[in-house]
Amino acid sequence: MSRFFTEKYAALVPYTPGEQPQDQPYVKLNTNESPFPPSPGVAEAAAREAASCRLYSDPESRRFSEVFAASLGLDRAQVLAVNGSDEALNFAFMAFGQELVFPDVSYGFYPVFAALNRIPYTELPLRADWSVDPEDYCGVGKMVVLANPNAPTGLALPLRDIERIVASNPDSVVLIDEAYVDFGAESAVGLIGKYDNLLVTQTFSKSRSLAGARIGFAIGDAALIRDLNTIKYSTNPYNVSRIASAVGLAALAEDGYYRENAARIVENRAYAAEGLRKLGFTVTDSKANFLFARHETVGGGALYRALKEKGVLVRHWDKPRIAEWLRITVGTKEQMDVLLDKTEEVLKEAAK
Amino acid sequence: MSRFFTEKYAALVPYTPGEQPQDQPYVKLNTNESPFPPSPGVAEAAAREAASCRLYSDPESRRFSEVFAASLGLDRAQVLAVNGSDEALNFAFMAFGQELVFPDVSYGFYPVFAALNRIPYTELPLRADWSVDPEDYCGVGKMVVLANPNAPTGLALPLRDIERIVASNPDSVVLIDEAYVDFGAESAVGLIGKYDNLLVTQTFSKSRSLAGARIGFAIGDAALIRDLNTIKYSTNPYNVSRIASAVGLAALAEDGYYRENAARIVENRAYAAEGLRKLGFTVTDSKANFLFARHETVGGGALYRALKEKGVLVRHWDKPRIAEWLRITVGTKEQMDVLLDKTEEVLKEAAK
Repeated sequence: MSRFFTEKYAALVPYTPGEQPQDQPYVKLNTNESPFPPSPGVAEAAAREAASCRLYSDPESRRFSEVFAASLGLDRAQVLAVNGSDEALNFAFMAFGQELVFPDVSYGFYPVFAALNRIPYTELPLRADWSVDPEDYCGVGKMVVLANPNAPTGLALPLRDIERIVASNPDSVVLIDEAYVDFGAESAVGLIGKYDNLLVTQTFSKSRSLAGARIGFAIGDAALIRDLNTIKYSTNPYNVSRIASAVGLAALAEDGYYRENAARIVENRAYAAEGLRKLGFTVTDSKANFLFARHETVGGGALYRALKEKGVLVRHWDKPRIAEWLRITVGTKEQMDVLLDKTEEVLKEAAK
Repeated sequence: MSRFFTEKYAALVPYTPGEQPQDQPYVKLNTNESPFPPSPGVAEAAAREAASCRLYSDPESRRFSEVFAASLGLDRAQVLAVNGSDEALNFAFMAFGQELVFPDVSYGFYPVFAALNRIPYTELPLRADWSVDPEDYCGVGKMVVLANPNAPTGLALPLRDIERIVASNPDSVVLIDEAYVDFGAESAVGLIGKYDNLLVTQTFSKSRSLAGARIGFAIGDAALIRDLNTIKYSTNPYNVSRIASAVGLAALAEDGYYRENAARIVENRAYAAEGLRKLGFTVTDSKANFLFARHETVGGGALYRALKEKGVLVRHWDKPRIAEWLRITVGTKEQMDVLLDKTEEVLKEAAK
């Protein structure tokens, strides 16, 4: 910290993104990226729009927002395009967070956004099986933040539980982070016309293979979106580049490609989960593009390090409750075979 | 405002970006974009990188930062890549702003960032000729924010004055916003090794024809950059997309093209300024890619509206001190001819 840094943030512990090591090629299963490239129209759209980049982007991202909203049966006024859904989360915490509740095991950025914005928060423990108890969030009278499916557990709440939580907190915003929704969970977007306190975030980083393009959306009642715009126009009005909008539009036009990829991920998830269970792992019933798994004898940290040495990168947190667990991105079938082979090797070596 | 919006920001008045009208094609001289397209390598880089966008961007933007820093004779640790320099300004206000001073007539976003971050600020009046009096900022013992050249006046401080301000405030950060530095002002970047309290922001939006790609940098002592990273990793670690980094690198590799364009803008600026003076305008000695001008008889608002009707869009603010003035982006010679012709028409009509 320099001697100029404001005291306000002196205690801030920033988020740690997953490793992006450059030392050797890895089977990279640590940041929940898609193993499939963006659809063919994406590169063409990027090149075309890059040539127009002397002009600022439309700060309202009108066309992109309109097409995205229409794909959900909504109006443009009900969505806000952002530079990755982390930006939407931060804007939402800024706009609506007076007091927060979220699970003790969830996306590690929530407590960071809360600390950044000096918002008091309560972490409610997940059940022993990692599931969210919806009762914990009904009628809490605070802003609720739930990833659905949750990360890193992969478990999803059914829509009826989400609706109960939203309906029982009419005076607080309920934020459902749907980064992983396309891999088998039920989206809450259909409830938006019904509840003015529901805010949903989605991203193009996972099922749409565009993590590196930084595209996300906040989706909710038009009044909530207006508030998010107040924040956006006070921080970074041109937050979404011309190229990001163009690339996002191209991806929306090729939706079938991404749906097929998501279906393949769901297949590969079942395949990898079965393989891991055969090797002695407990694996949650993930509805996301990753698995959450622990081995019956070998610890999470040891497994993580041994797999990394063998060129397979997974995610491990040295944190209470989850230190024995790994989060493993679901990739191609070939990648899952490498994962299973290398894991088997590690376990054999550990058993010696 | 929705009933959920936090009281903390209830009084926030967001920044208003320049119009991006879609109703008809304009000679667009209102947001200081370059009239020249990005260099040839940019589109190719965008297409190539878009194809790799399934992977997250490097949160450190290592290669891009390294090459940019090297172009200034600095190390990577002395720069931070951002999603447009507005983001760097906000991060800097967050990190270092305990109390602020900046000119009463300058970039309209400074008071918004200050309000967003609840930082008390003092606006020091520019002299009657719009120049900054460096004495006002020497030894103020608060964070100083100066655009150099200043906007919308176009006037630049010589480097020796910037250095006096930096040297006389050793315990506060002095932020020099160099968005327009490539059109004839002296950069303060050369002072960075000498003063640990100097922070400079630059952008690829103006001289580098990449407003729509959202690329900027903060440049300063490595300790300041570390602090900005603390903020960045607590708000949006992947703030710079893969495509933005690739496009920025391509632009750096074709630097000569942008230097030539900047030289042409400087020529066209002199040409347009002379034409406006002949038409009865007072025009400041701008070192930026825009002119700041007022007519001896016709008011700023009337001129702005009449020019817009004739298809020429310039920037006008209905604000104290500058309501009679226009800020006019310098474009191609052809655009400047249209500007001068249409202005002459407007003046003739007004004189009837």
